[in-house]
Amino acid sequence: MNENEVKVFCPATVANISCGFDVLGVALDAVGDEMTVRKVTEKGIKITKLSGQDLPKETLNNVAGVAGNAFLLAADYEGGFEIEINKKIKPGSGIGSSAASSAGAVWAMNHLLDYPFNNTDLVKFAMEGERLASDVAHADNVAPALFGGFTLVRSYSPLDIITIPAPSELFITIIHPQIEIKTSDSRKILKTTISMETGIKQWGNVGGLIAGLFKEDYALIGRSLEDHIVEPIRSILIPGFDEVKKTALSAGALGSGISGSGPSIFAFSKGKETAIKVGNAMKLVYDKIGIAYEIHVSKINTDGVRPL
Amino acid sequence: MNENEVKVFCPATVANISCGFDVLGVALDAVGDEMTVRKVTEKGIKITKLSGQDLPKETLNNVAGVAGNAFLLAADYEGGFEIEINKKIKPGSGIGSSAASSAGAVWAMNHLLDYPFNNTDLVKFAMEGERLASDVAHADNVAPALFGGFTLVRSYSPLDIITIPAPSELFITIIHPQIEIKTSDSRKILKTTISMETGIKQWGNVGGLIAGLFKEDYALIGRSLEDHIVEPIRSILIPGFDEVKKTALSAGALGSGISGSGPSIFAFSKGKETAIKVGNAMKLVYDKIGIAYEIHVSKINTDGVRPL
Repeated sequence: MNENEVKVFCPATVANISCGFDVLGVALDAVGDEMTVRKVTEKGIKITKLSGQDLPKETLNNVAGVAGNAFLLAADYEGGFEIEINKKIKPGSGIGSSAASSAGAVWAMNHLLDYPFNNTDLVKFAMEGERLASDVAHADNVAPALFGGFTLVRSYSPLDIITIPAPSELFITIIHPQIEIKTSDSRKILKTTISMETGIKQWGNVGGLIAGLFKEDYALIGRSLEDHIVEPIRSILIPGFDEVKKTALSAGALGSGISGSGPSIFAFSKGKETAIKVGNAMKLVYDKIGIAYEIHVSKINTDGVRPL
Repeated sequence: MNENEVKVFCPATVANISCGFDVLGVALDAVGDEMTVRKVTEKGIKITKLSGQDLPKETLNNVAGVAGNAFLLAADYEGGFEIEINKKIKPGSGIGSSAASSAGAVWAMNHLLDYPFNNTDLVKFAMEGERLASDVAHADNVAPALFGGFTLVRSYSPLDIITIPAPSELFITIIHPQIEIKTSDSRKILKTTISMETGIKQWGNVGGLIAGLFKEDYALIGRSLEDHIVEPIRSILIPGFDEVKKTALSAGALGSGISGSGPSIFAFSKGKETAIKVGNAMKLVYDKIGIAYEIHVSKINTDGVRPL
């Protein structure tokens, strides 16, 4: 590696963690894209290579390109960047595929220009990539991808990202049934109002989950992984969801829910052994239904995007 | 004091802390009732003395009596209790007047019977007093009164109370304009639905506030003290609210909002000096309007009810 080029790992992320719809996300360690970014004298962003997935390479149609353009617009820099993407996270999987590319691109550019921007600035640039991917510039995947660990988007206006500590024995199991749900579609089916009663339950659980993460109280984390608002609606789009969740809990998971806008389903466990056991139990459900799947067991990635 | 009698301090509390409507409360140190509870062989609860306020002494019409009855019903104890109440917290002030009496009574009884119940049990008994006072058995005042510090009612069913640490330099200023708002009335004007967008802001702020308390991040605590749901509606019932809040923030408060269901207004500050300055600024607003008030500046009471 020379100083004009950096290769980075761009982590997958779980957003919309149960009660934390639109605000809480976490970065994974076991799955992510690889990206090489190179400083060039020619202005603009050019995606020179894209492997792993069939995605557009044109700058304005690629989330890394769009995020990179937002970065360039704000940077005091006359040149441009070339990007090579080895896309390992499947688009539409619900584990932050677009966010990984957006976050990775701007992190690498910031690194190559010797850190003119802070992480919150980078989140803003990466959010432009998210806008391309899902029509909404949400931050709950790009924030954990950039900061690492758990992040809370306390406010969008102004953007206020809070880092939350990750208990050391917390592991995440993800099962990705091989069906695609577009984020934009899964947003459309959500209701625009909620009852006050349900709202109170939701912010009680958000408070409990944040407290559980700080206290390393695994049981409290589990009890707080409740979602009375989004999960009952979105889970309809995911075949076998109720069964997978029930099975995960029976196998020892602390809690389980929809990853992002689905179709991936996540489960939190205390300890790697339990997380693997939970994954094996989840698999059996899709084996029975006859839907292909990918499975990941990951500790929490506390670094976010990092050089390889 | 002998083993058949205990005198206790029953703290005032601030519930509905901005974004934490119905879930977040905190106990005060500078203001509270005093109560003496005595074991007697005669069954039942008897309120033998009630000074300070004009309130009913009949057991079934007094929150301490009702909470005490709930305690007795669950306790393995053949006798009864006599209660003397020196009521220093004005009813209808919005700083947990009824909760102090309910919590104090059951805490003292539990103490005299050598702690057969845990704090969560006591919260359940004290909630029966709250039901008498406001038609709703809420827990967000009795929980901090019993546990001390900040408490989160994560869930009502099952009841799940989470203690949250209190930053050491956090002080609370309370101004109580001398008008009465009944909790039951101030609940009636609330809407029964909220928009998803507002809900997301609310649980983002709850997450931020809990994180701020754990991190002792006073600026984050301040930024999170936002309420887009209840405050805009209830504040209409409190003359001068907007002006008092604005003035408190200008004087250096971290944040400010309605205490409980009002009319008291609270402000959080870093350091006692600022809290006093904030109080003086708040006073001026009511001096100008011509409404009498009481003011309290308090550190956080981390003990809850305690023997005197």
